[in-house]
Amino acid sequence: MKKITVALVQQSCSGDKKSNLSKSIENMRKAADHGAHLVVLQELHSGPYFCQSEDPDQFDLAEPVPGPSSELLGSAARDCNIVLVASLFERRAAGLYHNTAVVFEKDGSIAGTYRKMHIPDDPAYYEKFYFTPGDLGFKPVSTSLGRLGVLVCWDQWYPEAARLMSLAGAEVLVYPTAIGWDPADTAEEKSRQLQAWITIQRAHSIANGIPLVSVNRVGLEKSPDEKCHGIQFWGNSFVAGCQGEILAQAGNDTEELLLAEIDLCRSETVRRIWPFLRDRRIDAYDDLLKRYRD
Amino acid sequence: MKKITVALVQQSCSGDKKSNLSKSIENMRKAADHGAHLVVLQELHSGPYFCQSEDPDQFDLAEPVPGPSSELLGSAARDCNIVLVASLFERRAAGLYHNTAVVFEKDGSIAGTYRKMHIPDDPAYYEKFYFTPGDLGFKPVSTSLGRLGVLVCWDQWYPEAARLMSLAGAEVLVYPTAIGWDPADTAEEKSRQLQAWITIQRAHSIANGIPLVSVNRVGLEKSPDEKCHGIQFWGNSFVAGCQGEILAQAGNDTEELLLAEIDLCRSETVRRIWPFLRDRRIDAYDDLLKRYRD
Repeated sequence: MKKITVALVQQSCSGDKKSNLSKSIENMRKAADHGAHLVVLQELHSGPYFCQSEDPDQFDLAEPVPGPSSELLGSAARDCNIVLVASLFERRAAGLYHNTAVVFEKDGSIAGTYRKMHIPDDPAYYEKFYFTPGDLGFKPVSTSLGRLGVLVCWDQWYPEAARLMSLAGAEVLVYPTAIGWDPADTAEEKSRQLQAWITIQRAHSIANGIPLVSVNRVGLEKSPDEKCHGIQFWGNSFVAGCQGEILAQAGNDTEELLLAEIDLCRSETVRRIWPFLRDRRIDAYDDLLKRYRD
Repeated sequence: MKKITVALVQQSCSGDKKSNLSKSIENMRKAADHGAHLVVLQELHSGPYFCQSEDPDQFDLAEPVPGPSSELLGSAARDCNIVLVASLFERRAAGLYHNTAVVFEKDGSIAGTYRKMHIPDDPAYYEKFYFTPGDLGFKPVSTSLGRLGVLVCWDQWYPEAARLMSLAGAEVLVYPTAIGWDPADTAEEKSRQLQAWITIQRAHSIANGIPLVSVNRVGLEKSPDEKCHGIQFWGNSFVAGCQGEILAQAGNDTEELLLAEIDLCRSETVRRIWPFLRDRRIDAYDDLLKRYRD
């Protein structure tokens, strides 16, 4: 048994970076009071999701890692004695930025970072403008709690990313996320999108026999373009067990501090009855490295 | 719009091969009467699931392809004017057998075959004894209805298989299946297993933006080993759309002829809003070809 309590901070964000970070840190404290060992924040939690338009001024939001925000968060992790997964807009050099998850150890030090590998670009999610695709690969971050397979948002649609993390020894998958509805979509389309988002992540747990933590924001964030409807972030942060079963799930539209207990040793049992890793046909997977088999 | 009606034949099987095949063919006729274009039979539908024990005599059940059963089924497909996905125990040579899906064209000819690539071996599913792993790779079968990405049962737990079929142009995924509960398991475990089976397949539709057809058997089949409880095949044959939404689903324990309409052109629309294939990091997927990254 290697049970840990994980806390998911699902929040809305104002334009005030300081107050957003304060809210996150207040939730870290509450989580620690409830016995949490691991706290996960949503994607780019320091402010509104700025990728709804392509605006060069937004690069001002980026910071080096380590930098002021990472120092503040690391210090809070140390104060709370928790392992923290945070998500920052990283300035690596002039004209070179990443969407970066930073994992802090209980002593406040940086245990490791992950730079988002799969970068979306769709109406209202213009991330290819802002983020250089990650170049650190799919490497779990070793912490005092275990090896965390940290991925970010769009990565969650790629079974390849989850598999690579698992093959590299991840004991749990962690997805800071910012995803929501186009308010103009029909109720049916909204339902299909939300269910798809939950379903494909549960499937990563199933395929790999490890638990998963996904944290999304809530709130309607308006678009700078008046013709657009903005994004209604759909919350639903959740924790899945090693067989994809839902262990805890937050609501659509409320800020929540969601706690769940996960047993990192259950993978051992589940992978014995579902030994998927044993039977992978690695002799026949070459074409996974191709764009398409024309 | 390229709408096709698909029929899923979910049945139980007795020890009488002839009557099992007759039941399947009767359902093909009914399906054709209801306007079906594509009929999918469950895995190894000619008899009980014989892999509950390792018994060399069971190899007597195998047949060459083409052979008597494939000729019977092809002839029925022609009579019904439908495309058929059947599943046969193939004898390729003495000591060389496969778990093979055979796709028949409307004229009764064999459009193509798929030999199960991922072979399980678990208590009550001793398939590694019977089936040589497939050597035809993950190639969709071209038919008059479109390119069918036919896979078999255990393959359904592998996102790699679904992805490879999609990259090779599959327009729909098709899974003949034989899976069920250990009657001794708890209700909670049974529920987790069934939900996992549905969830991971829906995820293949989501990840690849194509519909999916999965056909499972029903009925309790006893084990030759009296210490074992047999398998309660859980049915739940279903059809999922391009976003993983359930379009039709059969029950746990009843024989059913389940019909659903799928639009093979909807992938075009869905992949425009979810352009996952665009962003795959094929430069960083090398380790998918490894067993594990030690």
